[in-house]
Amino acid sequence: MFDLDQEIKGAKRIGIAGHIRPDGDCVGSCLGLGLYLRENYPELEAVDIHLESVPEKFRVLEGTETICTSYPEKTYDVFFSLDCGDIGRLGNAAEYLKTAGKVICVDHHISNHGFGDVQFIEPAASSTSELIYLLLDDAELSVSAAKALYMGIAHDTGVFQYSCTGRRTMEIAGKLMEKGFDFNELLDQTFFQKTYLQNQILGRALLESMLLMDGKCIISALRKKDLDFYGVTSEDLDGIVSQLRNTTGVEVAIFLYETAIQEFKVSLRSNGRVDVSRVASYFGGGGHVRAAGCTMQGSVYDVLNNLTLHIEKQLKGADL
Amino acid sequence: MFDLDQEIKGAKRIGIAGHIRPDGDCVGSCLGLGLYLRENYPELEAVDIHLESVPEKFRVLEGTETICTSYPEKTYDVFFSLDCGDIGRLGNAAEYLKTAGKVICVDHHISNHGFGDVQFIEPAASSTSELIYLLLDDAELSVSAAKALYMGIAHDTGVFQYSCTGRRTMEIAGKLMEKGFDFNELLDQTFFQKTYLQNQILGRALLESMLLMDGKCIISALRKKDLDFYGVTSEDLDGIVSQLRNTTGVEVAIFLYETAIQEFKVSLRSNGRVDVSRVASYFGGGGHVRAAGCTMQGSVYDVLNNLTLHIEKQLKGADL
Repeated sequence: MFDLDQEIKGAKRIGIAGHIRPDGDCVGSCLGLGLYLRENYPELEAVDIHLESVPEKFRVLEGTETICTSYPEKTYDVFFSLDCGDIGRLGNAAEYLKTAGKVICVDHHISNHGFGDVQFIEPAASSTSELIYLLLDDAELSVSAAKALYMGIAHDTGVFQYSCTGRRTMEIAGKLMEKGFDFNELLDQTFFQKTYLQNQILGRALLESMLLMDGKCIISALRKKDLDFYGVTSEDLDGIVSQLRNTTGVEVAIFLYETAIQEFKVSLRSNGRVDVSRVASYFGGGGHVRAAGCTMQGSVYDVLNNLTLHIEKQLKGADL
Repeated sequence: MFDLDQEIKGAKRIGIAGHIRPDGDCVGSCLGLGLYLRENYPELEAVDIHLESVPEKFRVLEGTETICTSYPEKTYDVFFSLDCGDIGRLGNAAEYLKTAGKVICVDHHISNHGFGDVQFIEPAASSTSELIYLLLDDAELSVSAAKALYMGIAHDTGVFQYSCTGRRTMEIAGKLMEKGFDFNELLDQTFFQKTYLQNQILGRALLESMLLMDGKCIISALRKKDLDFYGVTSEDLDGIVSQLRNTTGVEVAIFLYETAIQEFKVSLRSNGRVDVSRVASYFGGGGHVRAAGCTMQGSVYDVLNNLTLHIEKQLKGADL
């Protein structure tokens, strides 16, 4: 961990950017740091936050209106890359690295090999927001900045449920909550809430799901005509495969949706016994042991037959 | 808060009981305290835990097999009533209070007016498990006992999302997690997992839900024939109304299911703007501002018309 005061000493213009297609931790860490710098370093001429976009639901955070979603030509004395595993993830903001006086990289992705002049990379941390908190002085942290960091931590831990959550994560979240904001409402608005259509399509996927392999595998498939009927996009399908995976007795969940004629996007989730990244890799995709994905051609039956063959093989192997 | 050592000094036989229809906090607090006493006070002849039943999903906790689901005649030197707002909630275990040498009441329900010889009642606490932790010496707490208390806290806070979660809650949960158990798996197994049939019926309820009042009210109704078709019980319907309430823009969610001909059990949830306990009270039920319920007679249309009339009135009043 570096000393923030020391690293930005003498700087006049600060730039902050996160990764493309920003998620809760990306928005939370960028906004949290940005607000903190603006509030506590009056000598700074500019603290700019650049993000490709700000998803509507995150707009409940104070300060999101100051986030710049374009990339005008600018030179920064210090430039922060947050929550980006590599320079490519910065998208257009990567340009700022070339002219910045100093680049500081704060991240928690295990794939991050380190870039920039100063690095604070901790793969064991729950989130980049957790790391940002460690750089700041809690006594000088405003409610708005605390809210942003809390949201970042909550999103990357699935609201404190994933294994990446540690004792330190819980303690930091507790301190942030104590600043005094309605965290229950914030979680509802940014994490739990689904649109009516998202709930409709989830309902459809659940209702049409089927159990295979003595209940160890659950599958659900949505056709393009159904997606068109509800008028939903791929983002509206987030979370469906996780809900399927959380079925009692299920080891592997498969969720597919048709993207074109005889083409399916496949999401795989596992409880850990089956390595779904091996299955996805076989079909040209990738991922992790518990979460992977690929794109497959053929009829829905071909796709499911091919997938289940590989899953069954692993389940049988694991049973030996 | 009392001193546990002091209060059980000289006791030989300890009894512990929680409320009827035990939930996560009830099982977690009883088991957590029971295991701790057994492990740290070898001079005790008996530490009995009495619960009406142990729901199957909680059986993943070590020690649940020692929970006594019957109520043989026994006399305890010290008897703990945990998570019970009043004596009636103890069910058959209330008998033990009459003969116990000392009754200790630990609870977090605001409705608890206090009973027993020694009381530790803190309505602001997230859970009884959080209060039990405060009575124990962390250094002497085993992994199994920590796991039980963590589960209790997690369940009563909806996994750290509800407003009852405080900084202390987060810190205690963090310390318990550090004892070293797979909290992610524990949460999946006891909190998030649904059976295939529960997901089917949830899917059905979501798919058939409708928005009213410009999207401020969402309703879903299930007929007895549908419940019979899936073979689900009322317990399988838990959580449906909360999922409905978490729809973007919705102020009030109404979920009903038919229990007999022309009879419906009604669950109401609100984001706080509408006081659903007022609606439920009007129809002979009760609850809180954000969660209430009642039983109503008539056709599904009668029931919905009557309910929505009262909700609309409040929404219009609130709009003035």
